[in-house]
Amino acid sequence: MGKTMAEKILSRASGEDAEAGDIVVANIDVAMVHDITGPITVQRLEEMGVERVWDPSKIVVLFDHQVPADSVEAAENHKIMREFVEEQGIEHFYDVREGVCHQVLPEKGHVRPGDVIVGADSHTCTHGALGAFATGIGSTDMAAVFATGKLWFRVPETYRVEITGELPEGVYAKDVVLKVTGEIGADGATYMAIEYHGEVVREMSVSDRMCLCNMAIEMGAKTGMVPPDEKTLEYVKKRAGTEGRPVEPDPDARYEAELTLDVSDLEPQVAKPFSPDNVVPVGEVEGIAIDQVFIGSCTNGRYEDLKVAAEVLEGEEVHDDVRLIVIPASREVYHRTLKDGVLEVLHEAGALICPPNCGPCLGGHMGVLAEGERCVATSNRNFPGRMGHRESEVYLASPATAAASAIEGEITDPRPYL
Amino acid sequence: MGKTMAEKILSRASGEDAEAGDIVVANIDVAMVHDITGPITVQRLEEMGVERVWDPSKIVVLFDHQVPADSVEAAENHKIMREFVEEQGIEHFYDVREGVCHQVLPEKGHVRPGDVIVGADSHTCTHGALGAFATGIGSTDMAAVFATGKLWFRVPETYRVEITGELPEGVYAKDVVLKVTGEIGADGATYMAIEYHGEVVREMSVSDRMCLCNMAIEMGAKTGMVPPDEKTLEYVKKRAGTEGRPVEPDPDARYEAELTLDVSDLEPQVAKPFSPDNVVPVGEVEGIAIDQVFIGSCTNGRYEDLKVAAEVLEGEEVHDDVRLIVIPASREVYHRTLKDGVLEVLHEAGALICPPNCGPCLGGHMGVLAEGERCVATSNRNFPGRMGHRESEVYLASPATAAASAIEGEITDPRPYL
Repeated sequence: MGKTMAEKILSRASGEDAEAGDIVVANIDVAMVHDITGPITVQRLEEMGVERVWDPSKIVVLFDHQVPADSVEAAENHKIMREFVEEQGIEHFYDVREGVCHQVLPEKGHVRPGDVIVGADSHTCTHGALGAFATGIGSTDMAAVFATGKLWFRVPETYRVEITGELPEGVYAKDVVLKVTGEIGADGATYMAIEYHGEVVREMSVSDRMCLCNMAIEMGAKTGMVPPDEKTLEYVKKRAGTEGRPVEPDPDARYEAELTLDVSDLEPQVAKPFSPDNVVPVGEVEGIAIDQVFIGSCTNGRYEDLKVAAEVLEGEEVHDDVRLIVIPASREVYHRTLKDGVLEVLHEAGALICPPNCGPCLGGHMGVLAEGERCVATSNRNFPGRMGHRESEVYLASPATAAASAIEGEITDPRPYL
Repeated sequence: MGKTMAEKILSRASGEDAEAGDIVVANIDVAMVHDITGPITVQRLEEMGVERVWDPSKIVVLFDHQVPADSVEAAENHKIMREFVEEQGIEHFYDVREGVCHQVLPEKGHVRPGDVIVGADSHTCTHGALGAFATGIGSTDMAAVFATGKLWFRVPETYRVEITGELPEGVYAKDVVLKVTGEIGADGATYMAIEYHGEVVREMSVSDRMCLCNMAIEMGAKTGMVPPDEKTLEYVKKRAGTEGRPVEPDPDARYEAELTLDVSDLEPQVAKPFSPDNVVPVGEVEGIAIDQVFIGSCTNGRYEDLKVAAEVLEGEEVHDDVRLIVIPASREVYHRTLKDGVLEVLHEAGALICPPNCGPCLGGHMGVLAEGERCVATSNRNFPGRMGHRESEVYLASPATAAASAIEGEITDPRPYL
């Protein structure tokens, strides 16, 4: 019987003939912690009496959630991690200025096709866009990984999602993944790997594929994946200096579930409060007044996202009643948009531009919402209180929809602006 | 007997023949609150049973301390003030994106020579750079101003400070005011107005004069002032469309104290922890290792400051052990540095650039310090815990000294970099 991508990668990493449902122990290629989960991992390691990590070249430590330090507690957490990096000789450390982990890891060559990547952050699934098996784990499991370099997995079943047709203008990867999330539901792919197929996915840039895989966890999935192709290998060779160990699913691989979606007539999508699967076409929510727009995050803070936002906002002005917060996902994205004028267009339109970090996505800082406030966000979650007060509301959308909504002061279909 | 600037302005504003030591009731020309002091003022007004402010055209409301909102509490405070602005028809409101109040007020034409300006923020004294009588007051006094448009003042004695000679290269207004603060001491000018005179002050740009006046409060003074000249009037005409009511001190004005400082041999100055008057030449602290550098604030976050920092940092790299946080003081400063490449130079050198706001100056967010950490900051205060943990240390310096220190990872004389 043929194998899915997840089965192939976990077979290689465990040395077993792994099939969905098996329990395997896999060797970990990359293990990542950030400024919130890192200190807990370090504490667990101490409790376990572990003195040295298994391999300082395979660990990435990065600060992105509370940067620059937004409290004494955050500053102390950063200090704990800087000391840990120094003590253990961790080779890959990105301090406060680099950006969001799920963007920085691929940029810096830490994501290769065929790798098993674990991150102490739920959106680690993003890296499946480059053909890795990448998933979020808790800090205690991470301590075990730091100690042994291994972790047990139940080999996931796979949900095959095929995106067909042709994306209309003004409709993007984010609209596709919102639509898919709406179709599959918040628990429709629990513990599965989602494999994305179809001509639309093949047409997509690496950036768009990251957006697609980023939201796999919002359907309960362990990871989202795209089979590697020329675009993948070009990206990875440039960043990591290797092609990695690319795998494709076998033609006779066994899928637990399948969804085929023709997107030729897809409209811009919006996930209403309070769940990412509460998805409707933008027309159903048009005209709802908003207070804030956030363009950024590991879902949509890449160069391509900011460029689309700038296309919509060029020569326009942000509505008086709206704060538009733009946060490039990494230092590299920031620099590119600074050099080529994208940031200037956004700033001239009235955006407030923050340095690369997770920002208000998780309600920490840089745009926390008050009671009753409404935000259109390009991020991935809109649970109660996600971006601030429990009675605030978050509508998830594409950068284009977010930008058009910032101009109008209400949720707006971006297509007339393009 | 002749009058000082403070006596003349308070005479005009009170309709009395005001002399130092008199108690007068003055008409207020501009009253400013920000996002932290505003909500307290509104609460006091309610307690006083006041339904309408005296003049919505003379009140400025601005958000700069916790922007974008760094907590639900901050977001709620912003909401309180937006509602107040709407209800009362306040004509001058600057939401989260505009920048630091003491920079935005002059830029937007709210500061005119001869005005009496009160702000619910201690560094309101900055506006004396344009020949206004400007001082910080508490939120309860501000509520009385909002209600009546008047406030009582004890007419201050004046401390005359004359800066003579010629500023050497690599030595700036910040070094001058640090030196003056060291000489006069933290309580050496308590309740006085400081009048700045001398050829060095006349040579200074408006930006430099703001830096000079900004730190008057650090000597206990009620305000710092520079007699208006052509540069003042040019700035004010452009911004406010009027020359205001400029006053100069009479030749026979009575001064309570005088200091003359020849700066021809002045070296770059640094205020060591834990007081702005704990000032030494940079040579005495050179080599002290640092963790962070902050370039920004109402003291040194202007275009001229960032440009000097960029001159030092051009083609250089921020030290691996240092976080360099740069915060333009206003949207206008941000835009100018974005357009002319100053931000790009700073970013390329490794700076992390935040949107216009007070930032870590007061330990709120965007670069809070951990226990034992050391920061070189271009701001105005270095009391225990000012920028974070009580056991952290802040060294106050010019943008040039701050930039050079960021390169070396230790406190550094900037002159070899210029």
